[in-house]
Amino acid sequence: MIKLGLIKRKEDNENRHCAEMTINILLPKFKLYNFNDQRNGKLVKLIFKTANIPYEDISISRKEQWNAIKNETPLGTLPILEMDGVKLGGQTAICRHLAWRFGLSGQSATSDALLDMFADLLLEAQILVFGPTDDNNDSNTNIIIVDDINLEKICDRVASIIEKQLIKNNTSYLIGEQVTWVDLMTYIFFSSLMDHGKNINLDKHPSVKNMYKKISQLELKNCA
Amino acid sequence: MIKLGLIKRKEDNENRHCAEMTINILLPKFKLYNFNDQRNGKLVKLIFKTANIPYEDISISRKEQWNAIKNETPLGTLPILEMDGVKLGGQTAICRHLAWRFGLSGQSATSDALLDMFADLLLEAQILVFGPTDDNNDSNTNIIIVDDINLEKICDRVASIIEKQLIKNNTSYLIGEQVTWVDLMTYIFFSSLMDHGKNINLDKHPSVKNMYKKISQLELKNCA
Repeated sequence: MIKLGLIKRKEDNENRHCAEMTINILLPKFKLYNFNDQRNGKLVKLIFKTANIPYEDISISRKEQWNAIKNETPLGTLPILEMDGVKLGGQTAICRHLAWRFGLSGQSATSDALLDMFADLLLEAQILVFGPTDDNNDSNTNIIIVDDINLEKICDRVASIIEKQLIKNNTSYLIGEQVTWVDLMTYIFFSSLMDHGKNINLDKHPSVKNMYKKISQLELKNCA
Repeated sequence: MIKLGLIKRKEDNENRHCAEMTINILLPKFKLYNFNDQRNGKLVKLIFKTANIPYEDISISRKEQWNAIKNETPLGTLPILEMDGVKLGGQTAICRHLAWRFGLSGQSATSDALLDMFADLLLEAQILVFGPTDDNNDSNTNIIIVDDINLEKICDRVASIIEKQLIKNNTSYLIGEQVTWVDLMTYIFFSSLMDHGKNINLDKHPSVKNMYKKISQLELKNCA
């Protein structure tokens, strides 16, 4: 079993990756609480998969279990990541933290800031497409709330901005030479739409299409 | 026409900068581009104020200047923070980065993750109340888009969650003993609503009310 972790200060950013390669011996035991029917846990799971880190995956039934545990969650939402007795909610907060632990962040404070910028874009797009995370109308939490015309506008905006950055960085990924959590976030944004039967055509954005393909292969490989 | 350009460091500026700042000798020269009529820059400005760090405040006229520089911004939105030639967009991305530079983050990775969690909550609430940051209908970018009933629900949710955490932490602030960027974000969320003439009553949430009051005093003090 994996043990409790050593937390390095964020200020150690520049040296973080090299250090993690050698000192990543003490990881906390991760528990991920998630609705089995909800989209929001997908990105967290993909981060665990990509980093090849074990975790306990706890599915919560919306009807039978949710009310009993809702008040124990910090934001009244799932997913929740539990580690070292700390319960962490908020999709991007969880993912950013895991990415930092698993070496899926940027290689410097500036790279991290740029990744956060694209994460802001994607989080906003996700809220516009799927609605707020705390939707009291439970049936609404897993459906697309915008019409197709607005969906196309939102997708086009996201894809154009990501395409521009991919061309600028010229490595298949948003920042640096390795996949980061925000590349995975981009992938999950588009793949969730496809899972909902939306015809997302990335032909106008060949670099996004290429990154999407690369990450989907990565996902399949790590699933195997 | 305004061009978002590389910062040209002038020697006299640089020397004055060093004289003013006794420790931060390697601080970049910060330029903040913002609409003079937009809410989104407020938090960034308050972070600069709280940390007492000088920056160049560049007001962009929506009608006359915005179209000329829009394509040079990474997300097609303002505010933009420019430092050392890097242009950073995304309100929370800018604030998180400045907070890290100015000591307004958490004191550990776990504290930072918890702060990010509350920032997720606030960012979502802000999008629900004020709409997306990239709203093509320019007149919409500074008005409240939800009706009063929904506004009350959103405010109550935010205030309840923040109240719970303030009681738990028991220091007037969300995490630790000092003010952080997410305390400031909470303050700006409620104060923006009050600026819009909304009657936000925090009596049901005394710890939030107390924090709000403390930060408003801090803001006044640093303005003087």
